[in-house]
Amino acid sequence: MAPKASGTAKASSRKADSTADNAELRRLLLAGPDFALDAVDPHSTPGFDGGKKAGTAALAAGADALSLLQEKLFAESRAGSGIAVLLLLQGMDTSGKGGIVRHVVGLVDPQGVQHSAFKAPTEEERSHDFLWRVRRQLPEAGMIGVFDRSHYEDVLVHRVRSLSPADEIEKRYGAIRAFENEVAASGTRMLKVMLHISKDEQKARLSERLERKDKFWKYNPGDVDERGYWQQYQEAYQTAIERTSTPDTPWYVVPADRKWYARLAVQHLLTATLEDMQLSWPPATFDVEAEKKRLAAS
Amino acid sequence: MAPKASGTAKASSRKADSTADNAELRRLLLAGPDFALDAVDPHSTPGFDGGKKAGTAALAAGADALSLLQEKLFAESRAGSGIAVLLLLQGMDTSGKGGIVRHVVGLVDPQGVQHSAFKAPTEEERSHDFLWRVRRQLPEAGMIGVFDRSHYEDVLVHRVRSLSPADEIEKRYGAIRAFENEVAASGTRMLKVMLHISKDEQKARLSERLERKDKFWKYNPGDVDERGYWQQYQEAYQTAIERTSTPDTPWYVVPADRKWYARLAVQHLLTATLEDMQLSWPPATFDVEAEKKRLAAS
Repeated sequence: MAPKASGTAKASSRKADSTADNAELRRLLLAGPDFALDAVDPHSTPGFDGGKKAGTAALAAGADALSLLQEKLFAESRAGSGIAVLLLLQGMDTSGKGGIVRHVVGLVDPQGVQHSAFKAPTEEERSHDFLWRVRRQLPEAGMIGVFDRSHYEDVLVHRVRSLSPADEIEKRYGAIRAFENEVAASGTRMLKVMLHISKDEQKARLSERLERKDKFWKYNPGDVDERGYWQQYQEAYQTAIERTSTPDTPWYVVPADRKWYARLAVQHLLTATLEDMQLSWPPATFDVEAEKKRLAAS
Repeated sequence: MAPKASGTAKASSRKADSTADNAELRRLLLAGPDFALDAVDPHSTPGFDGGKKAGTAALAAGADALSLLQEKLFAESRAGSGIAVLLLLQGMDTSGKGGIVRHVVGLVDPQGVQHSAFKAPTEEERSHDFLWRVRRQLPEAGMIGVFDRSHYEDVLVHRVRSLSPADEIEKRYGAIRAFENEVAASGTRMLKVMLHISKDEQKARLSERLERKDKFWKYNPGDVDERGYWQQYQEAYQTAIERTSTPDTPWYVVPADRKWYARLAVQHLLTATLEDMQLSWPPATFDVEAEKKRLAAS
């Protein structure tokens, strides 16, 4: 994370090198081989010593860098590159997936974003393999795709609420790994993020939706029912992450009780993903001096 | 336009009522029955007395109002409304269509935006009626659709470069009117905007693309060829606007030599379009007090 913004002596003594800082952030948030979801404190702020004010300022300070990288990704596609990015967001209801889209993805040009929200599948979608509807929404070259929920619902809610047979769900982990390897091999970098909130924080957020008339439309009585399965959902996430966090398509688990932290962390993870791609402005495919003359004469 | 922002005595004597100001702006920019494109000065700033600094501040000042209206539009769709908005952008190369998307549409939540850029049609698209690909991209309920170019290319470049027979183009004006009436009747409000730049301003903008290595990717030698048909394009726009500006689906012609003005004008036109829809937060479809108790017990 950008050390300048945290405003503490400890932070400002770090290297002023966002790539190095982002590498540290990744290390802190990566779901590696010994990952345990119940060891992650949803209220913590790994890699960032500052508070909300400094975090909000750091988010704004990182906007231009992210926006520039997105434009380079887009520009490269115009010159024929086939690469893209896919930000996949999962988390319990109210974990802040929409806020990430609005406040992080919203920092870049809408022309470069392909957003897909996956709700309960339609009848047509249910008639196909569970990956069918997801494949159709994969980002085109040059784009940042965003999945608000995804094929992981088919091993999360399906497992917890027994919407599919256990042996079918068991097969899906392998199918997901194969699918994601294929996506990565095609040139699309996946950034898989779980926004991790506590059950108490969810209660506070749902409560707000019942207090404000401008929030009623976001409230769904079914969300309270799902709270009864909280522990089962945590276990389903643990299993899904264990089985599908691979070196090429790793999971990052972002503590999300503090919205400002989750947004800042995802911004930096996304920036780091784009930095990895070593993007550059495409060279001219025409004779610049000749074109200057033609234009002057036109 | 917001009178506070223009910073002149004349402007601040106007009513501080954005709806009234937006009504005036619409009147100034509307392509009515006697519309003449060659009477519109691309360098003018109708309805706004201030300069670039005040205009940029006014754009920022209008962001929250636009964002709130977009959220209401989206919320209503969740409660079952079928309404949507379609912002259709046309203009010569470099007229700033992309800048409108980035700086005006970019002010609202990406979750509520469906952006479509229409390039030269693919083979599949060419095998269908010219409206086929456009219909497929109409915004879903609750969304703000954005068309960067549109079915109007089929009566603009097709007319100027004789890509279709004259009698076929002649039929298309009627087909467009019928199509757009149908779109309006289905509950989608269309905001059709032509960004009007001068030939000199286009030269300056193309020239910048040849001076900066981070702009080469935007330069297309074909753009210089098209400059040779400038007057024919103006005439094709005049005809298209004359034939398709109707009370329900009017055209607005926005002077666009000053980017800050074009962005501010389109922002206000879009805000006014949403204000017309008299959006409101959907009421609760559940018993709020009962849900509070269920949540507290969960």
